[in-house]
Amino acid sequence: MHASFLSRSPRRRHPFLSTLAATSLAVLGASLGTPPDRACADEGMWLFTNPPTARLKEKYHFEPTQAWLEHLQKASIRFNSGGSGSFVSADGLVITNHHVGADALQKFGDAQHNYLRDGFYAKTRAEEKKCLDLELNVLMSIEDVTSRVKAAVQPDLTAEAALAARRAVIADIEKESKEKTGLRSDVVTLYQGGAYHLYRFKRYDDVRLVFAPEQGIAFYGGDPDNFEYPRYDLDICIFRAYENGQPAHPEQHLKWSANGPAEHGLVFVSGHPGSTSRQLTLAELADQRDRSLPRVLARMYRRETLLTSWSERSLENARKSRDDLFGIQNSRKAFDGRLDALLDPDVGDILMARETTLRNAIANDPKLADTLAAYNKIQNAQSIIAANSRTWDYFEGRRGHAAAFNSTLFEVARTLVRAGDERPKPNGERLPEFRDSSKDSLELRLFSEEPIYADYEELTLADSLTDFAGAFGDGDPLVQAVLANQSPRVRAHELVTGSKLKDVAVRRQLYAGGAAAIAASKDPMIELAQAVDGVARAARKNFETQDEIKQQAYAQIAAARFSTEGATNFPDATFTLRLSYGAVLGYEENGKSVPAFTNFAGLYQRASEHENKPPFDLPPRWVERKDKLNPNTPFNFVCTADIIGGNSGSPVVNTAGEFVGIIFDGNIQSLALDYVYTDKVARAVSVDSRAIMEALRVVYDAAPLADELAGHQPVAAKATVTDQ
Amino acid sequence: MHASFLSRSPRRRHPFLSTLAATSLAVLGASLGTPPDRACADEGMWLFTNPPTARLKEKYHFEPTQAWLEHLQKASIRFNSGGSGSFVSADGLVITNHHVGADALQKFGDAQHNYLRDGFYAKTRAEEKKCLDLELNVLMSIEDVTSRVKAAVQPDLTAEAALAARRAVIADIEKESKEKTGLRSDVVTLYQGGAYHLYRFKRYDDVRLVFAPEQGIAFYGGDPDNFEYPRYDLDICIFRAYENGQPAHPEQHLKWSANGPAEHGLVFVSGHPGSTSRQLTLAELADQRDRSLPRVLARMYRRETLLTSWSERSLENARKSRDDLFGIQNSRKAFDGRLDALLDPDVGDILMARETTLRNAIANDPKLADTLAAYNKIQNAQSIIAANSRTWDYFEGRRGHAAAFNSTLFEVARTLVRAGDERPKPNGERLPEFRDSSKDSLELRLFSEEPIYADYEELTLADSLTDFAGAFGDGDPLVQAVLANQSPRVRAHELVTGSKLKDVAVRRQLYAGGAAAIAASKDPMIELAQAVDGVARAARKNFETQDEIKQQAYAQIAAARFSTEGATNFPDATFTLRLSYGAVLGYEENGKSVPAFTNFAGLYQRASEHENKPPFDLPPRWVERKDKLNPNTPFNFVCTADIIGGNSGSPVVNTAGEFVGIIFDGNIQSLALDYVYTDKVARAVSVDSRAIMEALRVVYDAAPLADELAGHQPVAAKATVTDQ
Repeated sequence: MHASFLSRSPRRRHPFLSTLAATSLAVLGASLGTPPDRACADEGMWLFTNPPTARLKEKYHFEPTQAWLEHLQKASIRFNSGGSGSFVSADGLVITNHHVGADALQKFGDAQHNYLRDGFYAKTRAEEKKCLDLELNVLMSIEDVTSRVKAAVQPDLTAEAALAARRAVIADIEKESKEKTGLRSDVVTLYQGGAYHLYRFKRYDDVRLVFAPEQGIAFYGGDPDNFEYPRYDLDICIFRAYENGQPAHPEQHLKWSANGPAEHGLVFVSGHPGSTSRQLTLAELADQRDRSLPRVLARMYRRETLLTSWSERSLENARKSRDDLFGIQNSRKAFDGRLDALLDPDVGDILMARETTLRNAIANDPKLADTLAAYNKIQNAQSIIAANSRTWDYFEGRRGHAAAFNSTLFEVARTLVRAGDERPKPNGERLPEFRDSSKDSLELRLFSEEPIYADYEELTLADSLTDFAGAFGDGDPLVQAVLANQSPRVRAHELVTGSKLKDVAVRRQLYAGGAAAIAASKDPMIELAQAVDGVARAARKNFETQDEIKQQAYAQIAAARFSTEGATNFPDATFTLRLSYGAVLGYEENGKSVPAFTNFAGLYQRASEHENKPPFDLPPRWVERKDKLNPNTPFNFVCTADIIGGNSGSPVVNTAGEFVGIIFDGNIQSLALDYVYTDKVARAVSVDSRAIMEALRVVYDAAPLADELAGHQPVAAKATVTDQ
Repeated sequence: MHASFLSRSPRRRHPFLSTLAATSLAVLGASLGTPPDRACADEGMWLFTNPPTARLKEKYHFEPTQAWLEHLQKASIRFNSGGSGSFVSADGLVITNHHVGADALQKFGDAQHNYLRDGFYAKTRAEEKKCLDLELNVLMSIEDVTSRVKAAVQPDLTAEAALAARRAVIADIEKESKEKTGLRSDVVTLYQGGAYHLYRFKRYDDVRLVFAPEQGIAFYGGDPDNFEYPRYDLDICIFRAYENGQPAHPEQHLKWSANGPAEHGLVFVSGHPGSTSRQLTLAELADQRDRSLPRVLARMYRRETLLTSWSERSLENARKSRDDLFGIQNSRKAFDGRLDALLDPDVGDILMARETTLRNAIANDPKLADTLAAYNKIQNAQSIIAANSRTWDYFEGRRGHAAAFNSTLFEVARTLVRAGDERPKPNGERLPEFRDSSKDSLELRLFSEEPIYADYEELTLADSLTDFAGAFGDGDPLVQAVLANQSPRVRAHELVTGSKLKDVAVRRQLYAGGAAAIAASKDPMIELAQAVDGVARAARKNFETQDEIKQQAYAQIAAARFSTEGATNFPDATFTLRLSYGAVLGYEENGKSVPAFTNFAGLYQRASEHENKPPFDLPPRWVERKDKLNPNTPFNFVCTADIIGGNSGSPVVNTAGEFVGIIFDGNIQSLALDYVYTDKVARAVSVDSRAIMEALRVVYDAAPLADELAGHQPVAAKATVTDQ
């Protein structure tokens, strides 16, 4: 007889939490040793108000001045569609990634034009194409409002009352600031609740497309090469910000470096990392690993299959779904890498040691006695969130992406229904997205003329309704009510073809008419959004109440961390502006050395190794111009800077604050950075400024644009100056 | 205020079961009316021992004789890899679908040869390529053994004892038959347990590849056109059965029809439909709809994404995973269609009415009083199966496909481990696949020299281990033990590279050495299979015990059905030989008329409409020979015969018993046939015998093969006859 299964005791594997009582963690952690000393590693997504000055001086003998920081901060741009960018000319040129601009490119397309696939170049300013709903934000000032927020939320409040009080004070702060400065004003939560900062942004909503390469070179190597290195991608897109119908003249812009970055040289990345999880408790990470990541991945697999198979049916289908499909594939690979990291016992050891160290420090400090309870509060709140996650997920979801209703028209309907209910309320009592301070951004999105394709809407809605029916069971009253005696496909057809919300004028009427107009509407999508709003709001309220409990507990833990480590650390990423730094440096992978730079010659070699077959085929222009290009031009490079999704499009600058490249990806090993920083093999991947210049001049015949980037006054602009 | 969600009562939707007590079904069903009279519809997957003679006479004025039936039965072939086929020459030529032969084609391939993609033609018999593990079965006789099986299973036994008794008697019957006749002998379960038949098969395991077209024409239109009509697919593959190293001379073969089928004409389909669910209770169907179909689809989406993205990385990856990817895409679309049907309230009405009618008949017949309890027994058993399904699914699965271990090497390891434990037991006590009567088939598979690619094994195993960890949670002791302190990727690498089971000689040693050799083995895959066998067997035992309870209950319901309807009906499909019939008939779809036939001209038109882009591109040979082909040759056609997956490759014959075509698909509407037959729009899709002949002669220069199919004695064979 062979040994029975359960008697085989694992050698050393002990995943954080789950089978271990929280109290035994310290003991276990102690036996593992603490993680290697990372004091010298280039870790950190630093606040501009708290830059890593000491570390930079010690390791790189460089000390950024206040002016240096302000220049970089105000030249940095947040793309509200999700991503980063920077001003790179005095006349408002903005550079970001092609995959950040893709949303705008997708929305320009129609059956005759596929800008996303084929690229675009405005030879003159008159040809620059105004984006439909793109908003750029530039961070102009930061104010610490932690004490005002904390003062408004008294410790004896129930979680529900605390949430309301916190909302109210934040709404007040934002409104006051907006009225005083005219700037977009957002109170952002840092350290999971340890601090609150008021960020004031200059807002640009007249943004025009200047240049995009073909997707075939921007995303060369496609999904297979995504998150891989070496790479050969011209992942850039160039816009121009306008004000009052004229090119903007931003306060700061980055000077273009003709020399690019130097190998081993110090570089900085200024951008908007979306989210990291380095300060989450083990309990919350275990829930990510065992519940939320597997579930979100299952949805990605589902949607990727749906869009891939639909895309194959015709070139027009492929065009309509291209940006969504890219986004799903990109997220799928990123989440896959995150889950892989959480399932890696080596990562688990580091995470456990990290929490153990802090818990031990807390346990040893009588002043912090209360704080250990915070861990339990977080675990309890997370369990409640987990237990209610199905309804939250299908009916509400993050940023209103309810999994049951994968439809742009539904999102429009929900926004209209909620606007009708929320706008009459006092500012401080509204859902945050309906606050006065968010009005401009909300209306920009709501009244966007982005194309909505009925067939595509039906496809995604029918699929998400089917998913929903499977998750709840067809007999569930919620399913019954949503499907209204139709199969998911028939119901989706009825909803999409019956709705008039494709027409922006109809949306404007319903928005202006408020709750009364909504109540009177017979639009089936409005009726659906109304019908499910009670369930969705209840799920959201439950989620946010538990989140409030977590914020309070995390605030306690953050205070303990400040007290034991000093306030020298950086908060987890929150899609707010951060400064990272590192060296341009290759690495070893499976015993092979991966150099820091690739070049154009490598691109042509890779294409030829793959017989120029998709996704390794070159756009015709790149084939034609091959002999004119300098093959030794550095194309992509890697550095050790600490980045994550949301950093896409971030400028890479040298110590002189010059633009030497643009972040567009991390290698596959960098996906673990969500949890643990390492500079052993994890790298940020960028396009070199020299490749951009060479491609613009030689491949795209875009000398005027290249001249403007290089800081030469363009002829047209000169003429204007003369005219004045 | 808008209406609250739950107060909106659905208009009419009432999914079967779930929210309705079983007792209220009859009432509800009665209010719906019974389904339309289908007496004249061409429904049925009939047993050859119980053909629909009366229906055929009434509707088509045709009466099959015993000789006619025997000829068709013995010319029909079951592909054990999953599919159907037929003998089409006196010298053992076998025709099936390309996608049925794909498994064999895939296994022939290597880095230099891609027969699956590029096709194959053996100009001489010497060039015919012997398949690695393909087994063909021809049904030679059928014997009703219901009374013997039932007698062995006394009604007072516990479910567990009943299962053992049923196993023992079946093993005895099979062994006796095998010893007496030398034929493969399988006892098959019909009517979900209402009857047991002993099927004796002539078995061919020397099968050689003669001809396959390019996958580009066999599967023209790819995934987008799969399950669609009109179609343009040459989905055929031709093998030859050998005996004693010489071409087999089967007792029966089909004469080739040069004329193909006639529009509106009666045709028959003789094949092996895999599985239907028309006699399942509503409780079991609700479980399919709400649990098993969504779950199996989630796994399909996951694997399709995995293989699609891996395939994109290189042409060699694409080759290695091609057949698996096709299989997954095909199943995904089929399951999607099934779930769509179960979520369709119109289908639900029919299903409910069907059960209600039978329940009412039972309730009205005092002799059947006990039978209503059978419905509850099934529902209870199904709940227990559902509650335990996670462990069953990940550790055991149907046909040993444990979802946690998606690896050929693991399957080999499990077979070896279990063979060591099972073979010493008395024949009647073994797991069915280790019975003496299954020995030849088991060893053919176990000792197959099919290529196993380490990178591909690692890919699929790492993914399934990740899936498993997500489903159970990383802290689960089962996950801990399986992963052995490694991440899924590292663990998969360790298992695959550490195992020697790729070497068939090693397998033979371990198999011959039995339990002692297994216990002594240090092969990591063997150790894993041992370690999980206790859990897997326990899950299987639970499943099979509940299944025994269901079989007994379904047997009661079947008896009631026989008693009320007469024994004139056909059982659900079970991958055993069945006879279907119908007319060659077009249909209406969205107001457009879809003709019964397509032709070669339509193929060229479709390619040109899609700019000859994949998957609508033509193989070069088809482009070159275009002008030589008769464009009016009928290519594909549809008929109303009742088919389902497993019927692929079934011959379509006319009333003269001649081969007029070959089933290869159903249209999208036919996917509902799993539950409900309809001839309104559901159609079986076939290749016309005329297209096959024209393509062989004109496109493939395969005149000798065409001559043999047409019944002309080939020159070489003539010479042999002269020699004798």
